Amino acid sequence: MIFYDCATAPSPRRARMFIAEKGITVETRQIDLRTGEHLGAEFLALNPRGTVPVLVTDDGNVLTENLGIAAYLEARHPEPPLIGRTPDETGLIWMWTAICEHQGGLPVAEALRNSSPAMKDRALPGPVPYAQIPELAERGRARLGVFFDLLEERLSESRFLAGDSFSLADLTGYVFVDFARIVKLRIPEGHTASQDWFDRIAARPSAQA
Amino acid sequence: MIFYDCATAPSPRRARMFIAEKGITVETRQIDLRTGEHLGAEFLALNPRGTVPVLVTDDGNVLTENLGIAAYLEARHPEPPLIGRTPDETGLIWMWTAICEHQGGLPVAEALRNSSPAMKDRALPGPVPYAQIPELAERGRARLGVFFDLLEERLSESRFLAGDSFSLADLTGYVFVDFARIVKLRIPEGHTASQDWFDRIAARPSAQA
Repeated sequence: MIFYDCATAPSPRRARMFIAEKGITVETRQIDLRTGEHLGAEFLALNPRGTVPVLVTDDGNVLTENLGIAAYLEARHPEPPLIGRTPDETGLIWMWTAICEHQGGLPVAEALRNSSPAMKDRALPGPVPYAQIPELAERGRARLGVFFDLLEERLSESRFLAGDSFSLADLTGYVFVDFARIVKLRIPEGHTASQDWFDRIAARPSAQA
Repeated sequence: MIFYDCATAPSPRRARMFIAEKGITVETRQIDLRTGEHLGAEFLALNPRGTVPVLVTDDGNVLTENLGIAAYLEARHPEPPLIGRTPDETGLIWMWTAICEHQGGLPVAEALRNSSPAMKDRALPGPVPYAQIPELAERGRARLGVFFDLLEERLSESRFLAGDSFSLADLTGYVFVDFARIVKLRIPEGHTASQDWFDRIAARPSAQA
């Protein structure tokens, strides 16, 4: 396997944490997003959508999305399970992963990419230029507030997002919450269940990977 | 199991097709999105995010996202496989499912919800009102063009999106391509590989479910 990573970006961090939780070692190559290496001819030949993470499997398949990478690694390395042991666990984990992507990941990306001067005409990842939409940055910030409330409600009743055990869903939510600092948003004061959950994940070795 | 469906909407259609492909029968309740039943107190008590599909499992867990529902059903009813038999197949299928959601599903939703007068202040699903952003409708239409090109490139080299067999990824892409008619966008003339793929899926009994 070869893992294409970028140490400073949230999307590849999700895959990096997943790999670390599995306790496996994968040959890793850094792609420098700041210098535009992901949009250069060499990397686009590997992933035409110009995004990291990418995992090239032992069979030579190129997996370009976090969901694909996680599902592949879970099937190859089932222990410790990060996507459940039973149908219900698996369903709840994919569900909370999807919720974190749609309610947390997209809003923080919208808030950042539609407001940062450095991301002018790069409001979406990849080689196609898209103009910034300032209202979308504002909407992203508002949605992150909704996401923080959703997390607090869920984590007040459940130790981890999908149940009693740490999973792909927690890792996904954690990375987006941590990344929200880039738009100066954090878990609100008084959201004690979310803050406790965040601190527990931050203390895992994978969070430093 | 109880399946909460809406016969006129694309998201629950994905779950409905998945169930049909599995050849199972699930008790189904229709939620009428046109009359706002999904935002009524009764349905919000089941799914606070106010979206269909929802699948209540035999153990009583409430699965509110297509990815969770598909993963649960695949684990409960492995045959015929729709999310792969090998780690590589599974990784590629989740990858192409994610690509279809992000590059096809989100753009068609943005194009519709940010332009339709009937969706004023409902630019996103769920109970929180969000104002329409006209530029986002335009961007959604542009992105659908990119998605159609992406599909054509992939399907020129592969019989189905993730390989030789029909999967969750095809079902996902098909539903979004079909739904794009609502914003008057269709597979472009000359995209013969995509059109052939679309026609093959449309001929499956699940497409009529």
